Amino acid sequence: MADAVYKKIQVVGTSSESFSDAAAKAVSKVAETEKNLSWFEVVELRGAISDGKITQYQVTVNVGCRVS
Amino acid sequence: MADAVYKKIQVVGTSSESFSDAAAKAVSKVAETEKNLSWFEVVELRGAISDGKITQYQVTVNVGCRVS
Amino acid sequence: MADAVYKKIQVVGTSSESFSDAAAKAVSKVAETEKNLSWFEVVELRGAISDGKITQYQVTVNVGCRVS
Amino acid sequence: MADAVYKKIQVVGTSSESFSDAAAKAVSKVAETEKNLSWFEVVELRGAISDGKITQYQVTVNVGCRVS
Amino acid sequence: MADAVYKKIQVVGTSSESFSDAAAKAVSKVAETEKNLSWFEVVELRGAISDGKITQYQVTVNVGCRVS
Amino acid sequence: MADAVYKKIQVVGTSSESFSDAAAKAVSKVAETEKNLSWFEVVELRGAISDGKITQYQVTVNVGCRVS
Amino acid sequence: MADAVYKKIQVVGTSSESFSDAAAKAVSKVAETEKNLSWFEVVELRGAISDGKITQYQVTVNVGCRVS
Amino acid sequence: MADAVYKKIQVVGTSSESFSDAAAKAVSKVAETEKNLSWFEVVELRGAISDGKITQYQVTVNVGCRVS
Amino acid sequence: MADAVYKKIQVVGTSSESFSDAAAKAVSKVAETEKNLSWFEVVELRGAISDGKITQYQVTVNVGCRVS
Amino acid sequence: MADAVYKKIQVVGTSSESFSDAAAKAVSKVAETEKNLSWFEVVELRGAISDGKITQYQVTVNVGCRVS
Amino acid sequence: MADAVYKKIQVVGTSSESFSDAAAKAVSKVAETEKNLSWFEVVELRGAISDGKITQYQVTVNVGCRVS
Amino acid sequence: MADAVYKKIQVVGTSSESFSDAAAKAVSKVAETEKNLSWFEVVELRGAISDGKITQYQVTVNVGCRVS
Repeated sequence: MADAVYKKIQVVGTSSESFSDAAAKAVSKVAETEKNLSWFEVVELRGAISDGKITQYQVTVNVGCRVS
Repeated sequence: MADAVYKKIQVVGTSSESFSDAAAKAVSKVAETEKNLSWFEVVELRGAISDGKITQYQVTVNVGCRVS
Repeated sequence: MADAVYKKIQVVGTSSESFSDAAAKAVSKVAETEKNLSWFEVVELRGAISDGKITQYQVTVNVGCRVS
Repeated sequence: MADAVYKKIQVVGTSSESFSDAAAKAVSKVAETEKNLSWFEVVELRGAISDGKITQYQVTVNVGCRVS
Repeated sequence: MADAVYKKIQVVGTSSESFSDAAAKAVSKVAETEKNLSWFEVVELRGAISDGKITQYQVTVNVGCRVS
Repeated sequence: MADAVYKKIQVVGTSSESFSDAAAKAVSKVAETEKNLSWFEVVELRGAISDGKITQYQVTVNVGCRVS
Repeated sequence: MADAVYKKIQVVGTSSESFSDAAAKAVSKVAETEKNLSWFEVVELRGAISDGKITQYQVTVNVGCRVS
Repeated sequence: MADAVYKKIQVVGTSSESFSDAAAKAVSKVAETEKNLSWFEVVELRGAISDGKITQYQVTVNVGCRVS
Repeated sequence: MADAVYKKIQVVGTSSESFSDAAAKAVSKVAETEKNLSWFEVVELRGAISDGKITQYQVTVNVGCRVS
Repeated sequence: MADAVYKKIQVVGTSSESFSDAAAKAVSKVAETEKNLSWFEVVELRGAISDGKITQYQVTVNVGCRVS
Repeated sequence: MADAVYKKIQVVGTSSESFSDAAAKAVSKVAETEKNLSWFEVVELRGAISDGKITQYQVTVNVGCRVS
Repeated sequence: MADAVYKKIQVVGTSSESFSDAAAKAVSKVAETEKNLSWFEVVELRGAISDGKITQYQVTVNVGCRVS
């Protein structure tokens, strides 16, 4: 396999639905400006609370993109 | 914004359904005795296994509450 | 309670569906060869991306098994 | 010296002035409800930004209090 | 098993005898005000020295208590 | 609140005056090219020494910026 | 010295007596199935509490065994 | 020395030869688009295995670049 | 891609030549008893010194193997 | 640049004034016995509390000194 | 209290008896050459195994000494 | 084996050639003033970059020396 180089971009996705949705949104947003997204790593899971209920899920991910 | 002070309370929620449900139960329980819950941070994900299947999801979270 | 000894086995489950499914698959696979699985600890959450979308969820877990 | 027991309380102080002021506010707030505060440990330094400038300093500290 | 919620309380036990005694004192002190203590986790081991000898053992533990 | 996505940019600010000034310079520099800076997290504190005195303060910060 | 290879096996020993006894039990159990045990590293110290007293000590250790 | 600001860019270099070559490739690639590269920090060492042999070395590095 | 499960095996390779050689020896040894080795992660780099010179390189690696 | 070797000395500075002053005192003290101090890294920030107020700032720093 | 400076010295004590004895030996050895030892912090617990039994306890400690 | 005590000395070796050479230089320098060097542990790998190329390798190591 060729000796590729990848950059890691750290993004925080947020969602009122779930951590999964927050991660998907983070990846989608990176895909708008970067090509060749290859993998992601979850760095942190947090969220917001209102009136005693979880109202926002926040996922910090590193997204690995092959540099052309 | 005013110079508020927050305390962090560490709780472990458990659920036979999912990590999400375990986190929600943890937050709800804190809301029974504390006011002004603002955010949470996931600290640890674990669980119990019986007969080769996951039977309990356990989520340790720090819950941030504004001190009035 | 008796002074049992447990071993921890580190496995990575993968799933095209969700992190939960990946964890379940990891535990099931360990259950094929080990007895007395007792608990698991999530060590890492990662995944693969294709065409700007998450296509695989990968969960590294430690599975604790009682040694008979 | 007597075999004392201490509890650690984790609080987040905030200030528009400085990290030092945020830490002082966190300690003062704990002192309103707890006695015998003995030491603190800085756990995290963060802050808020508005219009490209730091507008709030946030310090997470563990405060150690002797339990009587 | 029911979907219980646990809180973790961080305490530092001290003893002139041993780390074990310090941990036992920490747990006993928590038991004076909390019910349903279930487990503990050792977070830190330190101590004081006088005249070139260890004169105090200090154990920081998280104590998990089921919230009723 | 809308499901925003944020990117984190890691920068090192330096100052001959103080850690606070170094952090402020780091944030200002990011603000020259990025919009919607929201928060920062201190990652590392270091510095240079000359002739036995601290001559430069260096602060590594993650700056969180909302992606439009 | 020859270029040996070692594997590390992670086990959790438990004891109603002490952490030392729990570690000894963990090592003994590994010695039942593995040869050439060389060293151990303590990874985690935890335990169970009943009626406000420590009733079980749990030690997680990595045991290094030379592979023949 | 002037109060410069640096950004850190995280990249993964790969090589079929060695970790050193992988690091060199990572730095070279960053140099194609960034100026004033000053230092690097090794964050992670991994690699791929085929037919029981190491076939690719992967080095994650943070590259520090002075922002003009 | 199929939902494979991988196990991670932690081994320590040693070599009088270099860290690279130590890692290669560790992977080779795992390949003697396991099939489908896929990747490795460097966990720790250490070594022995005799007469003021490095005489042994020791590399702890996690080797990921697909479970059939 | 010559292939210098540096040693790191870990010291704790204390001050009733500020963390900055505590760090400066730590560096000054090292400079009394060591030459060629080059840089410092902040390892830990703690302090003492009396009567509900911070009365001492304690900074643990690694000081890097070139070995001649 | 005066603005003292402390240095931390990292030592590894060993004992065929117990971790406590190993820590005591480490502190005693430091006391032979340093004055004003004030505290210690346990950094690591390891040991040697022979014939399937623990034969040596090894404790790495940081010893804090006030610099006069 | 006798109950020896070891001290750990943290040094940073630098080399324009390789990380291995940097580590060797670090160990050699310690051997000029200390006796009975026994082992080393790699703590950090960094380096300098000039004109887009790695020009210096820097290895931080802990060197363990038996205290006589």
